[in-house]
Amino acid sequence: MPEFDLIRKLQSIVGNPDDPSCVLGIGDDAAVLEPVPGRQLVVCTDTLVEAVHFPAGTDPRAIGHKSLAVNLSDLAAMGAEPEWFLLALTLPDADEQWLAAFAAGMGDLAGRTGVSLVGGDTTHGPLSITVTAAGSVAPGTALTRGGARPGDRVAVSGCPGLAAQALEALMAGKEPPGSSLKALEYPEPRLALGQALCGLATACIDLSDGLLADLGHILAQSGVGAEIDLACLPQSGTLADLAEEQRWRLQLGGGDDYELCFTVPAEKEAELTALARSCGVGLTVIGAVTEGPDLVMRRPDGSRYEQATRGYEHFAPPRGRQE
Amino acid sequence: MPEFDLIRKLQSIVGNPDDPSCVLGIGDDAAVLEPVPGRQLVVCTDTLVEAVHFPAGTDPRAIGHKSLAVNLSDLAAMGAEPEWFLLALTLPDADEQWLAAFAAGMGDLAGRTGVSLVGGDTTHGPLSITVTAAGSVAPGTALTRGGARPGDRVAVSGCPGLAAQALEALMAGKEPPGSSLKALEYPEPRLALGQALCGLATACIDLSDGLLADLGHILAQSGVGAEIDLACLPQSGTLADLAEEQRWRLQLGGGDDYELCFTVPAEKEAELTALARSCGVGLTVIGAVTEGPDLVMRRPDGSRYEQATRGYEHFAPPRGRQE
Repeated sequence: MPEFDLIRKLQSIVGNPDDPSCVLGIGDDAAVLEPVPGRQLVVCTDTLVEAVHFPAGTDPRAIGHKSLAVNLSDLAAMGAEPEWFLLALTLPDADEQWLAAFAAGMGDLAGRTGVSLVGGDTTHGPLSITVTAAGSVAPGTALTRGGARPGDRVAVSGCPGLAAQALEALMAGKEPPGSSLKALEYPEPRLALGQALCGLATACIDLSDGLLADLGHILAQSGVGAEIDLACLPQSGTLADLAEEQRWRLQLGGGDDYELCFTVPAEKEAELTALARSCGVGLTVIGAVTEGPDLVMRRPDGSRYEQATRGYEHFAPPRGRQE
Repeated sequence: MPEFDLIRKLQSIVGNPDDPSCVLGIGDDAAVLEPVPGRQLVVCTDTLVEAVHFPAGTDPRAIGHKSLAVNLSDLAAMGAEPEWFLLALTLPDADEQWLAAFAAGMGDLAGRTGVSLVGGDTTHGPLSITVTAAGSVAPGTALTRGGARPGDRVAVSGCPGLAAQALEALMAGKEPPGSSLKALEYPEPRLALGQALCGLATACIDLSDGLLADLGHILAQSGVGAEIDLACLPQSGTLADLAEEQRWRLQLGGGDDYELCFTVPAEKEAELTALARSCGVGLTVIGAVTEGPDLVMRRPDGSRYEQATRGYEHFAPPRGRQE
């Protein structure tokens, strides 16, 4: 199928042709967009590669969802309102059924979050998807990793570790618990939460590499430390069935959660209850920011806990995740 | 090497940390940018895959150059002034020497064209590079494919066919002529020309899939035809050595030229001479726009010429180009 038809077909499923900010969309050398007046632009790009970020044979609907979701999650972590995205799709062949399911998964999420496909590129090669997403924020209000202060509370949304639980089961050839498979394949970008955190959170990051690694980025950028209370880590039913050490390993070191981890001033901790309700996602305070520089974790008995690995790094020696 | 360090290392070579429009660059979940006041945003994305867009073993410096150049070429075709770009880099391994050369090639072009690396993603997998580039235009001035009118002159910059000449030689295991290898590996995005064509050209496209295929896009979008005079096609020394039929095949069907093909009103044809001088690139009128709808090509003797294939299409059966 010619590239032109392919990207048009995707647009017919994914696109929002009525987006008024899109002056010129798919079908020319580039898209022309009207910036949202008085707002700053927030942009990010993320690639998913078959057999690295998802196992071969993954439902194309889930791949379509997730390749957009991981980018919207980055926008969420900045407190941005999503606006548009570009899709660079590398495919081994033009399988119409695969494409239809991929586009449906991407289109569902795009429609729900009000983001338009404005351009892209399709090419031949090993299956890989790069989405570039853009959003906007009021000037100076973007959340960053750099504002955490000693005394702030550390909080997370949802239930980090679920996605890793599903991945471990899949890698072992087992059936993953349903709620964990949904967390792995259909992560929900926390856009409403991120926007609501503007003016409330002092720092924010989305969880892609694991809670410890990503919280570590906040601490490094902010020049602080933190103390985390393992007894406070949120756990859904399927995580609660695990032995503590195994659960902590997933909760702290597992990746692919796409929940938000953020810090709020202690005096604003009480606002999180109303925020969780309005954003429709559980929010849990798991510790506090310290002068640092260490990230200290405490078991329920108060003893210090050490975890050998701190999340996933590309180009580091493989450790149980597909590479 | 951790992703964070890798993208920072690239930024240290490629980036322009003093870009005032970049409020927040590499090192957070997304970049925050100040839109250029009173301008529209122009965005595009293009992927290069090893063994599809360049042969395995290609000089990484050329890959770095070209992966940015093909995107800047899309901006040039819109008449946009380039502003910033994002880099999504998928690598089989973190080879420091390879990366240094890649970054040097990309950095040279970025520096010369005043475009800043503001963010990206590095991941593990088969070698593939996706760049997303953004530029700006005065509102309503972007060049498109859709404005060609009967009577307009059809012109091209540079010497289409050179890149294809080099590729054919490489595929046949021969040494390509130096000037054609340079055209293939280091295409020069025609940014100054594109900007100068705003308000002059009625339609414009960059040549990535071959002159016939890309001119065909202008004709289709504009609802017109064209008549091309093969005797007028520009030819450099190395192309001029070829037999006519072989030369026409490369000039019309070869891809990867990244020259601009554009249409100008007949009464403005004379302005092209000064434009060629100010932009430092040859400009050649090769024919005229007709009521259409056909794209007619005339041999020097006036007879009609037909070419079997019209440029390169992904997912089409391979025809001599590496796949």
